[in-house]
Amino acid sequence: MLTLGCPDTVGIVARISGFLQDVGGWITEAAYHSDPDSGWFFTRQAVRADSVAVSLDELRARFAAEVADSLGEGTQWALTDSAAPKRVVLLVSKESHCLGDLLARAYRKELPAEIVGVVSNHRDLEDLTARFGVPFRHVPFEPGADKAPSFAMLREVVDGFAPDVVVLARFMQILPDELCRHWGERVINIHHSFLPSFIGARPYHQAYKRGVKLIGATCHYVTADLDAGPIIEQDVTRIDHGDSVADMVRQGRDIETLVLARGLRWHLEDRVLVYGSRTVVFN
Amino acid sequence: MLTLGCPDTVGIVARISGFLQDVGGWITEAAYHSDPDSGWFFTRQAVRADSVAVSLDELRARFAAEVADSLGEGTQWALTDSAAPKRVVLLVSKESHCLGDLLARAYRKELPAEIVGVVSNHRDLEDLTARFGVPFRHVPFEPGADKAPSFAMLREVVDGFAPDVVVLARFMQILPDELCRHWGERVINIHHSFLPSFIGARPYHQAYKRGVKLIGATCHYVTADLDAGPIIEQDVTRIDHGDSVADMVRQGRDIETLVLARGLRWHLEDRVLVYGSRTVVFN
Amino acid sequence: MLTLGCPDTVGIVARISGFLQDVGGWITEAAYHSDPDSGWFFTRQAVRADSVAVSLDELRARFAAEVADSLGEGTQWALTDSAAPKRVVLLVSKESHCLGDLLARAYRKELPAEIVGVVSNHRDLEDLTARFGVPFRHVPFEPGADKAPSFAMLREVVDGFAPDVVVLARFMQILPDELCRHWGERVINIHHSFLPSFIGARPYHQAYKRGVKLIGATCHYVTADLDAGPIIEQDVTRIDHGDSVADMVRQGRDIETLVLARGLRWHLEDRVLVYGSRTVVFN
Amino acid sequence: MLTLGCPDTVGIVARISGFLQDVGGWITEAAYHSDPDSGWFFTRQAVRADSVAVSLDELRARFAAEVADSLGEGTQWALTDSAAPKRVVLLVSKESHCLGDLLARAYRKELPAEIVGVVSNHRDLEDLTARFGVPFRHVPFEPGADKAPSFAMLREVVDGFAPDVVVLARFMQILPDELCRHWGERVINIHHSFLPSFIGARPYHQAYKRGVKLIGATCHYVTADLDAGPIIEQDVTRIDHGDSVADMVRQGRDIETLVLARGLRWHLEDRVLVYGSRTVVFN
Repeated sequence: MLTLGCPDTVGIVARISGFLQDVGGWITEAAYHSDPDSGWFFTRQAVRADSVAVSLDELRARFAAEVADSLGEGTQWALTDSAAPKRVVLLVSKESHCLGDLLARAYRKELPAEIVGVVSNHRDLEDLTARFGVPFRHVPFEPGADKAPSFAMLREVVDGFAPDVVVLARFMQILPDELCRHWGERVINIHHSFLPSFIGARPYHQAYKRGVKLIGATCHYVTADLDAGPIIEQDVTRIDHGDSVADMVRQGRDIETLVLARGLRWHLEDRVLVYGSRTVVFN
Repeated sequence: MLTLGCPDTVGIVARISGFLQDVGGWITEAAYHSDPDSGWFFTRQAVRADSVAVSLDELRARFAAEVADSLGEGTQWALTDSAAPKRVVLLVSKESHCLGDLLARAYRKELPAEIVGVVSNHRDLEDLTARFGVPFRHVPFEPGADKAPSFAMLREVVDGFAPDVVVLARFMQILPDELCRHWGERVINIHHSFLPSFIGARPYHQAYKRGVKLIGATCHYVTADLDAGPIIEQDVTRIDHGDSVADMVRQGRDIETLVLARGLRWHLEDRVLVYGSRTVVFN
Repeated sequence: MLTLGCPDTVGIVARISGFLQDVGGWITEAAYHSDPDSGWFFTRQAVRADSVAVSLDELRARFAAEVADSLGEGTQWALTDSAAPKRVVLLVSKESHCLGDLLARAYRKELPAEIVGVVSNHRDLEDLTARFGVPFRHVPFEPGADKAPSFAMLREVVDGFAPDVVVLARFMQILPDELCRHWGERVINIHHSFLPSFIGARPYHQAYKRGVKLIGATCHYVTADLDAGPIIEQDVTRIDHGDSVADMVRQGRDIETLVLARGLRWHLEDRVLVYGSRTVVFN
Repeated sequence: MLTLGCPDTVGIVARISGFLQDVGGWITEAAYHSDPDSGWFFTRQAVRADSVAVSLDELRARFAAEVADSLGEGTQWALTDSAAPKRVVLLVSKESHCLGDLLARAYRKELPAEIVGVVSNHRDLEDLTARFGVPFRHVPFEPGADKAPSFAMLREVVDGFAPDVVVLARFMQILPDELCRHWGERVINIHHSFLPSFIGARPYHQAYKRGVKLIGATCHYVTADLDAGPIIEQDVTRIDHGDSVADMVRQGRDIETLVLARGLRWHLEDRVLVYGSRTVVFN
């Protein structure tokens, strides 16, 4: 799998496809995007592994030398083996719907990933996690206490699982800046509103009060700026005046679950490229 | 058509339906809503006109005496003849999509209303309006000039059409408080975002910058507080990273058009009851 | 909970609401529907249990005597205690998504029901069922063999659970007429297409071949006529030319899961009234 | 604009992009699709006209010689000037919604096309067409009479407008095979159901009878096989038990209008490639 973002200019596609042809690569899926505003070019190309004669390391070295090094400043690219499942750690609190859904998807082998651990500030979801044979770790956050030691322990526990991706699956603690930077672009959150509406706490209560006619959910990368990270996926569902906050919470669970599952799958399949506060999603 | 909102208590439905039975009313459509939070009760009942033996005036007098006067404080109700088409005035600027759509709907007699006039701060849409034989009035808003005389003229021109409803169909001037109060709950606006996201100017530019994956539109009653009035209807459409602001503007037009048409129809059919910042929509 | 369907005439609402007022019933949710084509009237009324002075048996006796017996021929009604959870049996084959979703919903106590047993013609889902502590029974259907003994055993096993509802959660055997009649209106199926499109086997293959741009799922009551029973709920999701049959199967799973969960919940909450080949869904 | 479909093999993208680089072409939009089932490859590439040094004729000659002629058997391609607006003829009967919408879109210059004529078997829409200054031709179809002369006249009248595209915008006559063949892949129809459900006459009546919970519309190319041509676009809207056939007809109009407008725009922008009974839509 090749993903690449670079300054746009004439002939990039020709050079990349020429290179892939040289190494015998059979392209099974190719997507391109030129962004006129930023003047940036993005591509994702899935190549049949058995069609390429050389090793992944050699492929990377040659791609760097023959293509990437002469593309413009700021070029970012990756050549990965999509057969290798990514390691996912889930951070949860008390709500089970996203956790249960992702465990079930992993159980039926729908995700190109392994859920290697579940970490929580509560013990409520330990039982559900155990039913699927996934390790569960409890990191207590005592009410009123200094959170720094808890976050330090969280970092250590999560890093112990060596994750490729950390998913905040309704984890109700705000990550400190330091942890956001440490985990970089590997953290995905599901927020239970259609961002940028209803940032912060109790979005369904906010939505009820405002009288909106649709509620939604947003899957996004986590940055230090709360609920402002690049959006991967969003969706909504219709409500009406008869729906109480409790009804909205219940219907919202289904949207949160689906939006997180879609966003996570696209991330795991290297379909999401970030630039600035926006994402390119090749799906 | 009976619409009513009152403090909730036991037996309201029995009293109303008992009254309607007494006057021989055949209910063709009935909807009820009890709001547990506010403790308020709402209903809308469509009665076959030919099934009622008495005149509308007598019906009103009897309903007041026999039912409404003994309901709780704050009770609001209306008994109207839905056969009488409502008078609609459209306020527009330069964008033709909502105007063209409503003129076409009126042309094919889809709306229980007559569009009696179109008023604009520009002359761009005079030609389109004339093609449908609807009176057009131009109220100039000179750039940089004091807007008060323009709004005074706008008020006079609009009031001259004796409208039941004033629709801001992409009218790009913010009504002053005084005019909002004067027209009361008779003003409907279409805002080109999924409120409360992207309040104010250039919402598609804001949406592009934030990188949202759905764009929307909101039909709401106008209050003195910009884009904060009670919402009648909202909808969204999916976009992706390939959509420029211009693409969003084009796709947004279709959503704006539909959302306004639906919201306006529900208002015209007395399906919308307002309480506080929320609406009950019996559709 | 009162549900009722009867020939439409003047004054039904008044009589029912008058009766409920007499027994002190506080109506928390009320929905009505008059069907002009069939001339039939439908209602569902949720009454606060603690507001009614008499027992459920007495309430039924009085409702029959004072209201229902004098309504027209064919009147059907039920007065039930919605606090009593319904007993659900799931019939499954090899696909785990609907099963896993319903087990997870039951686990988080989202459904007003208890899943009392899972019955399958395969053993594949025994492990998943066991993880949630629900009894699993295997009823073999040998390829090529006479199915009558298997269906007889299925009937016995299912009836042994004394279910209020039998759900075909991707059960890949067609129930014989006799079994449909035996279980009556208590059997709900999820079909993996937007009916009446793509009736029968391999609907996603049919959809791919036809080149449709949306795929869907349908939750319906089972009748002797395959895939023709009254529809409770349907939904669709967008696909495009890039989606293979396998992609459609994967995306279809999410729609099937949601549509079945919604349809089942509405059934469990007595929101679905059947007449002929159609349903009234008070949601 | 380059569109191309050919047997898939290694290196096609490299050859096309190499060619475009040679002539200096700046690609502003590029989409590719490999269909594993048919083993066919499709691409659409938008090139900035001012970036190409040679004339369109020379470009075609060189592309044939240097690329297309050596691609596999059955290869189809087109190089067109997307600045040239296409000529559209609309065929209508009595329903005005699609006609009015397309006239309004053309009026606000939203479509890359000119509506050069409207032809109808009735006179009902002559007035609306005239309001937009578009030529209207009436071709009578007398009830009970032989339709062959009418279709011969229709062919002559339509061909007189020299259309690039013929749109059946709720034209209620079934084109004879001969006319389908004559106009080839230039005819687009809007059918008022979610095909393949409810083929043929009165689809909303069929939908009502079946009790579906969503209604839809389908934009497709016309072939001799009724309602079986390749689908360009479809969409649906939710209905419920309260919606009569008349309500479905009204709500269906909005879906038909939108689906036709989207499908037609994609066709006009050369985004639709047909293969067999399916379409690739690069949107």
